[in-house]
Amino acid sequence: MSRLDIKNGLVEMAHGSGGRASAALIDGLFTRHLDNALLRQGDDATLFEVSAGRMVISTDAHVVSPLFFPGGDIGSLSVHGTINDVAMSGAKPLYLSASFILEEGFSLAELEKIVISMAEASRLAGVPVVTGDTKVVESGKGDGVFISTTGIGVLAEGIRVSGDRAEAGDAIIVSGYIGDHGIAILSSRQGLEFDTQIQSDSAALHGLVADMVQAVPDIHCLRDPTRGGLATTLNELCKQSGVGMRIHETDISVRAEVKGACELLGLDPLYIANEGKLACICPKASAAKLISVMQAHPLGREAAVIGEVVADESRLVVMQTTFGGQRVVDWLAGEQLPRIC
Amino acid sequence: MSRLDIKNGLVEMAHGSGGRASAALIDGLFTRHLDNALLRQGDDATLFEVSAGRMVISTDAHVVSPLFFPGGDIGSLSVHGTINDVAMSGAKPLYLSASFILEEGFSLAELEKIVISMAEASRLAGVPVVTGDTKVVESGKGDGVFISTTGIGVLAEGIRVSGDRAEAGDAIIVSGYIGDHGIAILSSRQGLEFDTQIQSDSAALHGLVADMVQAVPDIHCLRDPTRGGLATTLNELCKQSGVGMRIHETDISVRAEVKGACELLGLDPLYIANEGKLACICPKASAAKLISVMQAHPLGREAAVIGEVVADESRLVVMQTTFGGQRVVDWLAGEQLPRIC
Repeated sequence: MSRLDIKNGLVEMAHGSGGRASAALIDGLFTRHLDNALLRQGDDATLFEVSAGRMVISTDAHVVSPLFFPGGDIGSLSVHGTINDVAMSGAKPLYLSASFILEEGFSLAELEKIVISMAEASRLAGVPVVTGDTKVVESGKGDGVFISTTGIGVLAEGIRVSGDRAEAGDAIIVSGYIGDHGIAILSSRQGLEFDTQIQSDSAALHGLVADMVQAVPDIHCLRDPTRGGLATTLNELCKQSGVGMRIHETDISVRAEVKGACELLGLDPLYIANEGKLACICPKASAAKLISVMQAHPLGREAAVIGEVVADESRLVVMQTTFGGQRVVDWLAGEQLPRIC
Repeated sequence: MSRLDIKNGLVEMAHGSGGRASAALIDGLFTRHLDNALLRQGDDATLFEVSAGRMVISTDAHVVSPLFFPGGDIGSLSVHGTINDVAMSGAKPLYLSASFILEEGFSLAELEKIVISMAEASRLAGVPVVTGDTKVVESGKGDGVFISTTGIGVLAEGIRVSGDRAEAGDAIIVSGYIGDHGIAILSSRQGLEFDTQIQSDSAALHGLVADMVQAVPDIHCLRDPTRGGLATTLNELCKQSGVGMRIHETDISVRAEVKGACELLGLDPLYIANEGKLACICPKASAAKLISVMQAHPLGREAAVIGEVVADESRLVVMQTTFGGQRVVDWLAGEQLPRIC
């Protein structure tokens, strides 16, 4: 096999050829860092055993810019993002696949950093990357690295979490501070640098979800408020379930730095992406139990009830503002923050 | 939801926002054409039932250029490519996920053509796209459309197809004419137009594979010779199994037009990508049975034994040429045909 000069080398078109250079890149970089027994099978498809039951599948393309940001990078994000989408069905994520689209001329050293970060996130989460693919596009036809990950998981009996299950009277819970990821990305963009120490909240939430569904198997909805932020997620759930929501601004946690950055930039934290937070809809009677379970988990320490589901044919999310007024919290219209994930 | 003007509209950054415009794109274009009961669940992860047993997962990024070519487009290719990777384990493909990376400014009408082609390929194959994701990158940071698909499938008991199972004495079978896909792509590239009617062989091979494993459950290896062509695929199998191969040029089917184009362009058909062919390694005693089963299938009509596996510590593929000589058929080095799939 041709040798891979990771320290000084660049991605070349030949790395996507399927020939000798591709094999060198896969062996020397991807397989080396992501190594696990299933990936080591070395065929185009990876074989695994399952028990009878219900499974889930979810996929996400990751095009975040910049590739490295405070609190993470595209590698860890592509692991967390898909684990979370699987977890939001109440399932236990089992395996990930990863497909890379690399731009010719991208630094192999940077690529290795991304793959190492991916491997660490995957190991920490206990969800291995078991199969993958790499393609290379000409310089100017991509943007460094894009990563699409797909996750599969298994769903325990008795759990039926879905966006169409919100009912009037249900409690709306959010697991913590909102807006950190989006502001962390913005703070690292060229020309938009401002003085904040905000880190992305990028994290795998399947451990938190496992505790939650164990405590309250009848959770109605779970969703991670990524693109479009909490506002869009709540509107999606209203649309799917045919209900409205009433939320309370004072109960929604936003860090002072995030508030400040949003004021400076004319943004609303409700529309800013999160990558380590979840919204949960549950029967009102289970809310207190769920909050205490969530607060006992490192990723749910600031969990709080932020409102309630109501009967509303217009399917509106209405917020009681801090100043005593009410306003409709609509879907995100247009594009506030491109390429946030 | 905002209205989607498919006829005249272009992909906008807002279509990747996760907000109202994203929802309009998903409802009006993706879900509409790819529609099926599982996709209709409408959550970020899709739920399905499985029996106990062995499953496989495979993923592929598709960056083919141009997006439309004789005999297919990136939509059908992204369905066939991943179905084939799943099928090459001997498994029955069940479901696909699809993640799209769109370039700002790409025509929605062209995107619809691609999605319709994807939907048709998926319906014809009986393998639905059950979950997906769409991201948008700025104009000049992508190249129209990239599609990553992931497939999962189930593997019947008793089947153990893997690249490391080739044994000295085994027969090497190829399912038909090689080189069609690569030459079809080349023929449609700007500046490389030449007079050929070659169509891509892009096709889903799981039906052919199902017939093959039913007839001969002890097939040792299956692999689709895509990037890097048949030469690279055979070398991969030699490396994985620790064997050598002897192949016979006269037994390898290459269309006259493909031969002609290769001569004109200085290419070797053995290194040209295929998207609807497979190489199979099986016990010599089963070869005749397998050939007759393959020839009875529309996608295996020209199936032939092209050589045999030999003990060879150097793991070389050696070809007996038409003119009576011998030459080593090495791995593809460098990049002959970028962005072929």
